[in-house]
Amino acid sequence: VRLCQAGLETLIGSRSEERAVGKARELAAELRGAGLNPTLAGVPNHVLVEKADLIFLSVRFPHVIDSARSLPFKAGSRVVDTSVPVIFEAGAARFVEDGEGSVSERLCAALPKGVRVVAAFKTIPARILGDLDSGLDCDVFVCGDDEATKQAVMRVAGLIPGLRPLDAGPLSEARTIERMAALAVKLNLRYKVKAARFRAVGV
Amino acid sequence: VRLCQAGLETLIGSRSEERAVGKARELAAELRGAGLNPTLAGVPNHVLVEKADLIFLSVRFPHVIDSARSLPFKAGSRVVDTSVPVIFEAGAARFVEDGEGSVSERLCAALPKGVRVVAAFKTIPARILGDLDSGLDCDVFVCGDDEATKQAVMRVAGLIPGLRPLDAGPLSEARTIERMAALAVKLNLRYKVKAARFRAVGV
Repeated sequence: VRLCQAGLETLIGSRSEERAVGKARELAAELRGAGLNPTLAGVPNHVLVEKADLIFLSVRFPHVIDSARSLPFKAGSRVVDTSVPVIFEAGAARFVEDGEGSVSERLCAALPKGVRVVAAFKTIPARILGDLDSGLDCDVFVCGDDEATKQAVMRVAGLIPGLRPLDAGPLSEARTIERMAALAVKLNLRYKVKAARFRAVGV
Repeated sequence: VRLCQAGLETLIGSRSEERAVGKARELAAELRGAGLNPTLAGVPNHVLVEKADLIFLSVRFPHVIDSARSLPFKAGSRVVDTSVPVIFEAGAARFVEDGEGSVSERLCAALPKGVRVVAAFKTIPARILGDLDSGLDCDVFVCGDDEATKQAVMRVAGLIPGLRPLDAGPLSEARTIERMAALAVKLNLRYKVKAARFRAVGV
């Protein structure tokens, strides 16, 4: 919905075409209700991967890597990983550390050579991204090793009202951003708020 | 100077009493020039460790742990670690990862049992803390395993104009805060600014 709000032509993918089409219809109605005129369609994942200029993976950790492996990415595919390695146990949030590095780095290693992976949107709660009535008023930290793809993601993020994209460096910096995302989740629980997120001051 | 600005009785420590006294005089003059009436004195480190209610270590990484080891801390000493594991190489900032955990955790392990270590002020550049003309306008993330000491540090931080203390959890969360501090340093270099720091939005 935020990509639609930014005026971008948007596809929603699913393994099931029926589900994708249904979800696109539902969200298009919601967006029109908010006075927008979205260009939004639902397609099977393989069509989305073929057609989309930027492919946002919004699959929950820990499933994101396995899900991505099943998609027909090829060299040159541009993938945005939004996942956060947090699991909930007994009402608490636990950051899942992995000696192999961030989820984004492991995702990149698991995909075919030449797929360009960018980490972004990790520190912004899905809840607030999905609620067009909520101002975002925060930064989106963008990391990646392919400069052109990172810049493309930053341009797209900058079209979303209330978001400021910041170049957070190479993909390995996702180690920091994923920890920040986990901290935001913990702040939500500790302070009984719902959408803690971050802004860099002085930049 | 920020502790003085907050109206707190402040001691500056040094291995050399002469240097401590000289620095305290110099800063007291600066503070009076800014219209403040500081209670500030310079003392040898062993006197500071004996007398101070909260002991702020403002020693640069990687020297902080060795320096702290040489101080006569004892069970019950309350120590605030402000250090950031970043080194500068060829104009770039490098985060120094350590398998043993954050600097704060390693510091805690290196000190006598019962010393209470809190991590704080890591994401706030020394430069802006030292410049009373600069508004801080950011959060200070405070971590520690001793709840009372963490709360005491948060109270003190909350007395400093423009700072909001946030409880960032146990001392192990310093792993996140130290990475954030390194990110702030890298943002300074990338965006050619001098005092990038963070604020949590929605808390």
